[in-house]
Amino acid sequence: MTPTPWSAYDHPLRSRLLLGTAGYPSPEVLGQAIAASGTQVVTVGLKRSLGAGAADNGFIAGVRAAVRDHGARLLPNTAGCRSAREAITLAQLARELYDTRWIKLEVIGDELTLQPDPWETLTAAEALVRDGFEVFPYCTEDLVSCRRLLDVGCRVLMPWGAPIGSGQGLINPWALRTLRARLPDVPLIVDAGIGAPSHAVQALELGFDAVLLNSAVAKAGDPVRMAAAMAQAVAAGRLGWEAGLIATQDLASASTPVDGRPFVLP
Amino acid sequence: MTPTPWSAYDHPLRSRLLLGTAGYPSPEVLGQAIAASGTQVVTVGLKRSLGAGAADNGFIAGVRAAVRDHGARLLPNTAGCRSAREAITLAQLARELYDTRWIKLEVIGDELTLQPDPWETLTAAEALVRDGFEVFPYCTEDLVSCRRLLDVGCRVLMPWGAPIGSGQGLINPWALRTLRARLPDVPLIVDAGIGAPSHAVQALELGFDAVLLNSAVAKAGDPVRMAAAMAQAVAAGRLGWEAGLIATQDLASASTPVDGRPFVLP
Amino acid sequence: MTPTPWSAYDHPLRSRLLLGTAGYPSPEVLGQAIAASGTQVVTVGLKRSLGAGAADNGFIAGVRAAVRDHGARLLPNTAGCRSAREAITLAQLARELYDTRWIKLEVIGDELTLQPDPWETLTAAEALVRDGFEVFPYCTEDLVSCRRLLDVGCRVLMPWGAPIGSGQGLINPWALRTLRARLPDVPLIVDAGIGAPSHAVQALELGFDAVLLNSAVAKAGDPVRMAAAMAQAVAAGRLGWEAGLIATQDLASASTPVDGRPFVLP
Amino acid sequence: MTPTPWSAYDHPLRSRLLLGTAGYPSPEVLGQAIAASGTQVVTVGLKRSLGAGAADNGFIAGVRAAVRDHGARLLPNTAGCRSAREAITLAQLARELYDTRWIKLEVIGDELTLQPDPWETLTAAEALVRDGFEVFPYCTEDLVSCRRLLDVGCRVLMPWGAPIGSGQGLINPWALRTLRARLPDVPLIVDAGIGAPSHAVQALELGFDAVLLNSAVAKAGDPVRMAAAMAQAVAAGRLGWEAGLIATQDLASASTPVDGRPFVLP
Repeated sequence: MTPTPWSAYDHPLRSRLLLGTAGYPSPEVLGQAIAASGTQVVTVGLKRSLGAGAADNGFIAGVRAAVRDHGARLLPNTAGCRSAREAITLAQLARELYDTRWIKLEVIGDELTLQPDPWETLTAAEALVRDGFEVFPYCTEDLVSCRRLLDVGCRVLMPWGAPIGSGQGLINPWALRTLRARLPDVPLIVDAGIGAPSHAVQALELGFDAVLLNSAVAKAGDPVRMAAAMAQAVAAGRLGWEAGLIATQDLASASTPVDGRPFVLP
Repeated sequence: MTPTPWSAYDHPLRSRLLLGTAGYPSPEVLGQAIAASGTQVVTVGLKRSLGAGAADNGFIAGVRAAVRDHGARLLPNTAGCRSAREAITLAQLARELYDTRWIKLEVIGDELTLQPDPWETLTAAEALVRDGFEVFPYCTEDLVSCRRLLDVGCRVLMPWGAPIGSGQGLINPWALRTLRARLPDVPLIVDAGIGAPSHAVQALELGFDAVLLNSAVAKAGDPVRMAAAMAQAVAAGRLGWEAGLIATQDLASASTPVDGRPFVLP
Repeated sequence: MTPTPWSAYDHPLRSRLLLGTAGYPSPEVLGQAIAASGTQVVTVGLKRSLGAGAADNGFIAGVRAAVRDHGARLLPNTAGCRSAREAITLAQLARELYDTRWIKLEVIGDELTLQPDPWETLTAAEALVRDGFEVFPYCTEDLVSCRRLLDVGCRVLMPWGAPIGSGQGLINPWALRTLRARLPDVPLIVDAGIGAPSHAVQALELGFDAVLLNSAVAKAGDPVRMAAAMAQAVAAGRLGWEAGLIATQDLASASTPVDGRPFVLP
Repeated sequence: MTPTPWSAYDHPLRSRLLLGTAGYPSPEVLGQAIAASGTQVVTVGLKRSLGAGAADNGFIAGVRAAVRDHGARLLPNTAGCRSAREAITLAQLARELYDTRWIKLEVIGDELTLQPDPWETLTAAEALVRDGFEVFPYCTEDLVSCRRLLDVGCRVLMPWGAPIGSGQGLINPWALRTLRARLPDVPLIVDAGIGAPSHAVQALELGFDAVLLNSAVAKAGDPVRMAAAMAQAVAAGRLGWEAGLIATQDLASASTPVDGRPFVLP
């Protein structure tokens, strides 16, 4: 049994896991992790791909091959940008290089937390949407900031769960639940902070549509096995959300009553 | 990719989900849930099966059929017992009825929390082991109490996660982690309290060998879909444990560095 | 023993509790709560005071009397404003009415969470600082947004702990800790969300300088007793921070060793 | 305003803080900490006092002096005991040495967690009560085990919050709340695990009657200041419990409504 499909910018998707490509031990492991994850969207850093040039020890070719082999779609990102201007320029180069309107917009506002800069992100998003991009903004979990991104034409949101690479999971579940409740029709993807399969499940159980992660797989003891774990985690979380979780209660409720009829229906 | 197999009382098992049979809407749903869960161990309440007799509207026959069809093994339980004496008697009847040495020992010490009674459980476990049973004790998460159960011959432990049917998940992760660390060679199963797939994943990520649950599936909006969710959850949690989770850290660590070589190895 | 004094906009303060004046059962209870709290800063809603006029059943007169009797300072607030423009107008009226440059700036961005609107708050803060106000902005816990408020001249920040009146406490301690660590020299006050004395203590233990609260006292079963509780809570939290908390550890460390010399020093 | 008084074994008490005497930098600091804490019950390790003899560098004399000067009562403890037999012997020696029927019964069941051994503790408690002692048992937070201690004649319970000296606070608030709800008339004291003033406040807010702590004060950066912090913390927590905390809610509730009459009553 598999979760229901979803879509981002009208692109139909079955997998609810988006995977980053940085920091893997080798191109082979990256390729195997992509395969094991079942992902259909792979994100790649533009600064990396553009900057490394011929000396990229096979990175771009490896990613392209993996993406092609597994039928995934490429989502270039602007990781490393500190201003709207820089991100816009990079996004435009990416569109040419990868021939795609998709862009994961990442404008960092702090060097230690690598948190999104709400102002610069909004400015860049507005410009990129106007320029024809389909923008996946890495953003904070703040409802008002998220609404502003929708107002300028974003149709997917990617709030952070925790600082990039920190593996802390969802540090503010209240805010994520609030986002889901208040923006019921927007595809919501937790981006950054996922460290364990349980974190991914929690995001899906909250009703998020998907998670994007990288370090949790790339830096795991066994990245390929962790990729498989994450594939099952997002499926488990989504199936759980769809199946309807039981309500929690403070005290016990005997699952095995000792009298009455065993089944609710005869 | 699947998790490594394990075993309980030398009985080899692949699935890390043990499933209860109480409270399902109908025998058909129970059968389908067993199938979707992939479970290999199904627990059944003795008080129910013995008490209901001919009026059990197909419960026992349904469970037997499901178990047979899916190659699962039956684990009779003493749910509803309040004393060692009562549990011992019931276990002996179960052995005859189901022709098995396995018994899930459950002696309740409080009506509202349905928590295990450490004293009565220990007394019953000792007697049952001496009588040739292979005992799966439902117990508290207390290390000293768990050790006493091992001392009298239990070779599997089933600490509760939270009150039965409460769906609260793991209310004392510290104690569960401590049990895992201090009893590295004992099969440990979280029994009771699991309400969501994320709870099951957490238990496996802590290094527990399996979870036993009932209400989370039986009382879900769609029990069969939730059974499938739980099947993937335990696989995800175990694969994650085997793959080696990344360490958490307070601040960010760029997953996409903007310089240096893309892969660790050339 | 009392905590060290602090200051806001060069105004010296001993108490670390700022108190709201809304929703008390009666003027007498409000006055007694102010006395029991030991507060030196009392905030009052401008919309209320301006709008209610002669029909305010003694509210303004009561607040003024309480403030005067207890040597507290009045901090007018713009609660209820939805735009920078509205908040600026109200602040200017407040300055005339209360003859103070202090203003608690509150521009709400969502009707259900009553969260601050980062954009409108920033716009208003910039205008008010330029106009000579000393602004206490009610803001989110987002580091980048907080920095922008400092950039336009705010010298105190008041991040929310949780939605106003929700009593949830500190829903994102990570972000609050980060603020404290990254803005070591800015007076930081948790505003909104405090429901219990333990929440106030936590804020102070994190190194925050003070808390502002209202509903937790006004709507307690016994507001005057709760005001006394909060007074002790902020003192306890601050003394704890100043005394230096012990490090936490996973396992035990005998506080009563059974050999060696009893004291570290002879 | 001060919290209502309480009592333990009919001994009236105002302070809700019981203080340990181990690990202080010097006798002077211990004496000052006792004074600053306002405690009326001071616990002292028997193994320490008996074992050290003349070489105790003033420990016993110092404790006796501090206790006498501050009108506190001595509560000898059996810290370091591993069996009922050992604890009983020690308790009997303590009664002679300190001329008191009070004994803090501590029988450890694990070297790493220093958790209570429920079986040995129960055995010792029963014997000591029969021998005329007034027993303060250090116990787990398990309801059934606590009830057994009451059954053998204990009239005060001291469940742990976390491992001794770990400073983790209350690791299982659910169980502590359950104890309070189910044993409404028994004086309950959180013993062990308190690391910060906020932990002490939480215990009192849960309705516990008092806390016993040692390391959090003795090993703080400034023990005397921390003792003062803890004194205010227990008062704050108890006053909060007595005043009646507001209910928490998921969304906001304006504390400053912008229309209607300011006070509930005219």
